[in-house]
Amino acid sequence: MSTAEQIAKKARIAGNSLKTISNENRSAILYKIHDALKADASTIEQANKLDLQLAQENHLSDSLLKRLDLFKGDKFDTMLQGIKDVADLEDPVGKIKMARELDEGLTLYQVTAPVGVLLVIFESRPEVIANITALCIKSGNSGILKGGKESVHTFREMAKIINETIEKYHEETGVPVGAVQLIETRQDVNDLLSQDEYIDLVVPRGSNALVRNIKDSTKIPVLGHADGICSIYVDKDADLEKAKRITLDAKTNYPAGCNAMETLLINPSLPSWCEVLENLTREGKVTLHVMNDVKEAYFKQLESLGRLDDVIKSSTVDVNESKDFDKEFLSLDCAVKFITSTQAAINHINLHSSRHTDAIITENKDDAELFLKGVDSSGVYWNASTRFADGFRYGFGTEVGISTSKIHARGPVGLDGLVIYQYQIRGNGQVASDYLGAGGNKAFVHKDLDLTKK
Amino acid sequence: MSTAEQIAKKARIAGNSLKTISNENRSAILYKIHDALKADASTIEQANKLDLQLAQENHLSDSLLKRLDLFKGDKFDTMLQGIKDVADLEDPVGKIKMARELDEGLTLYQVTAPVGVLLVIFESRPEVIANITALCIKSGNSGILKGGKESVHTFREMAKIINETIEKYHEETGVPVGAVQLIETRQDVNDLLSQDEYIDLVVPRGSNALVRNIKDSTKIPVLGHADGICSIYVDKDADLEKAKRITLDAKTNYPAGCNAMETLLINPSLPSWCEVLENLTREGKVTLHVMNDVKEAYFKQLESLGRLDDVIKSSTVDVNESKDFDKEFLSLDCAVKFITSTQAAINHINLHSSRHTDAIITENKDDAELFLKGVDSSGVYWNASTRFADGFRYGFGTEVGISTSKIHARGPVGLDGLVIYQYQIRGNGQVASDYLGAGGNKAFVHKDLDLTKK
Repeated sequence: MSTAEQIAKKARIAGNSLKTISNENRSAILYKIHDALKADASTIEQANKLDLQLAQENHLSDSLLKRLDLFKGDKFDTMLQGIKDVADLEDPVGKIKMARELDEGLTLYQVTAPVGVLLVIFESRPEVIANITALCIKSGNSGILKGGKESVHTFREMAKIINETIEKYHEETGVPVGAVQLIETRQDVNDLLSQDEYIDLVVPRGSNALVRNIKDSTKIPVLGHADGICSIYVDKDADLEKAKRITLDAKTNYPAGCNAMETLLINPSLPSWCEVLENLTREGKVTLHVMNDVKEAYFKQLESLGRLDDVIKSSTVDVNESKDFDKEFLSLDCAVKFITSTQAAINHINLHSSRHTDAIITENKDDAELFLKGVDSSGVYWNASTRFADGFRYGFGTEVGISTSKIHARGPVGLDGLVIYQYQIRGNGQVASDYLGAGGNKAFVHKDLDLTKK
Repeated sequence: MSTAEQIAKKARIAGNSLKTISNENRSAILYKIHDALKADASTIEQANKLDLQLAQENHLSDSLLKRLDLFKGDKFDTMLQGIKDVADLEDPVGKIKMARELDEGLTLYQVTAPVGVLLVIFESRPEVIANITALCIKSGNSGILKGGKESVHTFREMAKIINETIEKYHEETGVPVGAVQLIETRQDVNDLLSQDEYIDLVVPRGSNALVRNIKDSTKIPVLGHADGICSIYVDKDADLEKAKRITLDAKTNYPAGCNAMETLLINPSLPSWCEVLENLTREGKVTLHVMNDVKEAYFKQLESLGRLDDVIKSSTVDVNESKDFDKEFLSLDCAVKFITSTQAAINHINLHSSRHTDAIITENKDDAELFLKGVDSSGVYWNASTRFADGFRYGFGTEVGISTSKIHARGPVGLDGLVIYQYQIRGNGQVASDYLGAGGNKAFVHKDLDLTKK
């Protein structure tokens, strides 16, 4: 048996056990892990200093160093609080979603259950291992975790503490050893991606290249996002001030975010539409990658208003039409195109967007409803910034990731994305051959039971 | 652009349009399709006769001939009625599953939406094309359909009528041409399996080999079932009569069904346990593939009762331990093993079953609850036959298939498995930078709205 198979099989066995553990015990072990990490803070800090030192020696970027530093500001305390927050969430497992009487004394229940075994791959942020551990255990899934290599000493130390804690309290809580396993190399990940018999879901967090690479190398379902190519359509009936505020926020609040606007579709019938573009450049320092007809009309309007200056000229460049509307700039750049109807905007978005989040700005309810119904993205917004696409802003408490998949879970994914359901039947000796369709005469009752009554 | 890409792109465009069509119009076109198929029954019958004639010339089996014959008994009328039944189902699209006030005038909705484009592959049963067409259109998905080659003339004729009807009423209903496309060759299927940019879900119905082959050849998610290796555990506290009835039904009611029992786990502490085995053989003509210790104890008991005869002896064979507990017999055969605790039964099932449906027979509630919680299959039953795992019996109205996947949809899948959700935000110009976490001071309200109130 290969090492990868051993790890995967151990995770499967742990997962089978974990799914039977009560919410009280799943939460209790998270509190114990919280306490142990807190008590061992100084050991973790030493390991973290080693990672930082090696990163400095390797001349890694300042932003990476900042991410690596677990003890900067209140990051460590926030991480600890996060574990307790997840522990205190409502139990996602064992919720009855449907109950139906099939016949007297024969009842069908649809009950939430953990997915099983998760392989979670994440970036070099030391606090994420605590977060993912909490999410896995709370949702009754066993996890195989791989973090970015720059944090390996911190991860190793924290995984050691987490596993010792699980082992120490195993008798008390029932949470199995093997519920959380840390792996360290990219080769381990590659080997595990072939363990589709044991692993149920891969959750990659990080770059698009990582997600795409993983999707290409495994038969296991992948919950991850490809690109975040978000568009905003400013309709002819848009409120100009809303259009200016929303596009500026969507583009500039955090340009590196996957929910930032990358494409602006603007209807030239909107009076003073050029102010939307001007505002992006003057207020937001945005470089606009525009179509020829947009440039011509934009410059002409600004000239007639006496506002066509060098700032505008140098920030308005020709769009690469065959590429830029399918591009995630992740910078203060935006592709711009004229669109003359809501249906045309829907068509453009369904063809070019990455099915992440797209918005319409309009005061016309009919156009808004058409857009909300027609656009095939996980988030469809009316008069709000695409930047709201986020687990925290949606009130999910915690976020596993943002999914651009079309099945299972879309958009910001909370604990709900880590559970699925099982059908339970509770009977009293019933057999199918007594019923119609299988040789018998009895008819099914099929009466839904009221779940609000206990 | 390849033919496959053209087909897939056409389906995508049709799907984008179909998702905006009202339930009234989606149902209306199904009634029109019903009427057209009914009116053209004689043309369809001619095509069907051609398929039957070719099948006879090719010496295909009687059971296949029976499946091919669309006009045998009331099969054609049942098919027509099925279209109307699906049309009359509750709309699966646009259901609000969650509504949350994020802030005053900023509301988040989780709304069901079609998955998008389905590639459905099914067996040589002419009536299935009508069924799948109805399911696709009702759920707002466009479908690319491929049926078994033996029915190709019937499929072709029916697809022609369906497409002419959609075209004829396109202006009236809005249902787009291209909503349903028939493809005819295995090569077309292979080519389409690489169109993961346009196709969202593959639904293969048919043999396990087909499903496995498709899973191995595509990056598109597959909703299908691998094997149906269902087990029944007869506990020491089982009611003997229930155990006899349920195992007999589960094994013999329809041995070729994926929900038939393939493995019997029996606790030798149950008094008269040997009657469960004897009943399977004498009443059900079942050949038992038993472990050595089972055989020894079974024969000894029957001998002492004076019932060890040639029928029993010839129907009790040695199990191939390394293979038979992972095998779908699909015949009057069953693997048998002693299991001495519910936990051991859970462990065996989680290791060997195909996560389809497994049952415990016991009068002990604690053991039943442990089993229901511990077994990781889509169906977990207490004192009922595994044969109940079926969309009709669950009351789903119609069944897309039975899924042994761990994500998106498990077990019998109704229309619900063909929809997913989108998040809508309806705002009034709100931007993220006004709120905490993105640079502002406003806090989110996160107040769930009551969905039972309209």
